[in-house]
Formats: sequence, C-alpha cells, structure tokens
Amino acid sequence: MNFNQSHISAMEKRYRTTFINSLPGYKCLQMIGTANNNGVTNLALFNSIFHLGANPPLLGMIFRPDGDDHDTLENIKKTGQYTINNVLPEWFEKAHQTSARYPSGYSEFEPCGFKESYYDDFKAPFVAESSIMIGLEMREIIDISINNTKLLIGEIIHVLLKDGIVASDGYVDHIKAGTVTVAGLDSYFTTEHLGRLAYAKFI
Amino acid sequence: MNFNQSHISAMEKRYRTTFINSLPGYKCLQMIGTANNNGVTNLALFNSIFHLGANPPLLGMIFRPDGDDHDTLENIKKTGQYTINNVLPEWFEKAHQTSARYPSGYSEFEPCGFKESYYDDFKAPFVAESSIMIGLEMREIIDISINNTKLLIGEIIHVLLKDGIVASDGYVDHIKAGTVTVAGLDSYFTTEHLGRLAYAKFI
Repeated sequence: MNFNQSHISAMEKRYRTTFINSLPGYKCLQMIGTANNNGVTNLALFNSIFHLGANPPLLGMIFRPDGDDHDTLENIKKTGQYTINNVLPEWFEKAHQTSARYPSGYSEFEPCGFKESYYDDFKAPFVAESSIMIGLEMREIIDISINNTKLLIGEIIHVLLKDGIVASDGYVDHIKAGTVTVAGLDSYFTTEHLGRLAYAKFI
Repeated sequence: MNFNQSHISAMEKRYRTTFINSLPGYKCLQMIGTANNNGVTNLALFNSIFHLGANPPLLGMIFRPDGDDHDTLENIKKTGQYTINNVLPEWFEKAHQTSARYPSGYSEFEPCGFKESYYDDFKAPFVAESSIMIGLEMREIIDISINNTKLLIGEIIHVLLKDGIVASDGYVDHIKAGTVTVAGLDSYFTTEHLGRLAYAKFI
C-alpha cells in the first residue's frame, strides 16, 4: 500500500493529521507542568520531546503554531522553568484529558485529578503521581520557519525518581517505572522488554 | 532518588550518557537508508526522529557533532534524499549491529543482513525487511549552537506500507506493523495496546 506526495496532500485534513502523526511510530509521552508568575499552574500532554545531548543534559520539544499549547509556552518564557513527568498505565486516561482545550489561566491539575508537587526552590509544579519527574530550565527557543513551529531547548536541572528504577550503569528502567508510550495523538501503549544489547562492534 | 545539576555533571561520562539518554523514555526507532552519488549505500540506526508537522508532512531528526553518523548526513546533503524504516522484533539485533562504526564508504546493508529496495526513481535505498518505509527529501538543516548538533528537517515523499496496517481514519497500527521502540541507546521493546482515546473535551 503506497502513498506519494500527491496522495498525501489530497488526503482529507483530519485523515492526514492522524496518518502522518502515527506513521513514524512510538514517541516520548510526557505531561508538562508550568506556572505563571502568579503561581497559577498548567498541565499539558506532549509527545514531541526528544534527547538533544547528555553533557550538558538537554531535551528538545516542538510547539505548534496554532496556540493549543499557548499557556505552556508563555509560562516557560516568563519563568524559564518547566517539568516533564511520565505517564503511568493506571491513569493514562486522566493524562489524555489534560489535552482538552481548558480556558487560558485555568489549571488542569485538579480537574484532571493530578496533585502538584514542589521541590527545592523550583517554581514549576511536578506531577506527584509520576514515577519520573524532571525539572528543566529553558535555554533557547529556535523558530522553525518552514512550518512556523518552535523548538524549545531545556537543560535538566532536577531529576526526581521513584526508588529502584536506575540500574548500576545509569540505565533508567521504564518497565519498572511503568512509563507509557504513544503513537499518533491518541493511542497509548505499555511495553515488553526484548532486551538490552551490547555496544555494537564492526566485525 | 533525586539528582540535581551538580550530581549530573559529576557523573562518570558513560554513566551520564546512559542515564540521560534513557531518562525521558521511549523513542522513535528507525534505520536511515542513504546512498552517495556513486550509489554506495549506507544504513544507520537512529532514535532521534520526531514529528514536526502534518501539512506539509515533516519529520525532524538530530545529528550529533562527533561524526558517528558522518556518512548518513553527508549522503543526505549530497543527494537530498533518505529513507526511514521501522525495526521489527524478529531482527532487532541485526538493526542494532548497524550502529557499529563501519568504515566510511562501506555499506551496512549486506554485512548486517538487510536487503536494499528501490521505489520509483527515488535514489535512497529502502529496507526491504521493514513493514513501514518512508522516503524523505531534505528541506533544511538547522545548526543548534548550544551543543553543536544539527536538526535535519525532511518532507515525506513516499510511504510504502505492508498491507492491512492503516485504519479507516488514517491511523497507522504499529502493533500490526510490529514496530519496535527503544529507550536509551541499547534497550529494545515491543508494545501492548492500552487503547485509543477520543478527542479530549473541556468538561
């Protein structure tokens, strides 16, 4: 079953959105916690987070141009801080609910059933229900002119982990953490381990 | 178990690489197929691919500064074309082997056990063993100065799919496709479906 450029551009809009979003496979699913300067919190579901580098420890994420995620980006610009929090299978439906269009300035934490958690003097709220919580500071926003998206780059400042999920070599075990993954915008998955492989050598 | 910025920067290099790479969770795993202007092919494993937009259909991926993936990027710059191909559980070990440091100009296809497949007049090789094969044309390379990485943006030109994996609404079913996901650099997973959820509404 083959599609070329003209097939794709002729697709009905919602069909194309679903098709292209789900096509490349599993993605990094996280809830982003932020607060504005008055301490009003926001919680939003994102699946566009990616590893950018280990030293300094940097993560990237993409913001769309249409403003669905307006509060999140505005809060990050104002405070310079945000958290990313993994999603667990016991409450993935509640995490999905944070993707609804809540009015600006209205926190998703309480109505969606999540508890804010704070650490040290970090202003952005962590999600108490998550087993992996990461606090980041904004480092850079890069405008991507080809489709008016923005790439946010943040540095990892705090890592708060449930006990017993880090192996002796630093590997974070997402089976033990219970992390959920996503394909497309609405399809959620748990995982089964195939295995860890040794560093590949030219033979 | 908590780590702050100074704990992270004090980590032994290999421990930090493993820790930070595995920390955010599951990633989009793909083999990238390219060819140079003489038709010498290259196949390399990447886990930094992300959705950038559906219209036009764009994917982003990150290249590291250290040149492990030198042939892939050079081939893409020269020919403007590349393919991304999903990894199946039956041969994930062979896919991992493509991440070894093969000499420049030496194709990983045959020694790692993969067959090149060509479609239409597209110059870059697809991986015949994959169930989802995507042909892309380079649109832009953005230098990310904070850590000397590069963001490659490509537009989807061809999509070649095994029969029966696209739902009536355009959703690509990665359980049916058999797509493998990865956490960190070396840990591979299959998935189990939790469910697809309806578009979330403010209630």
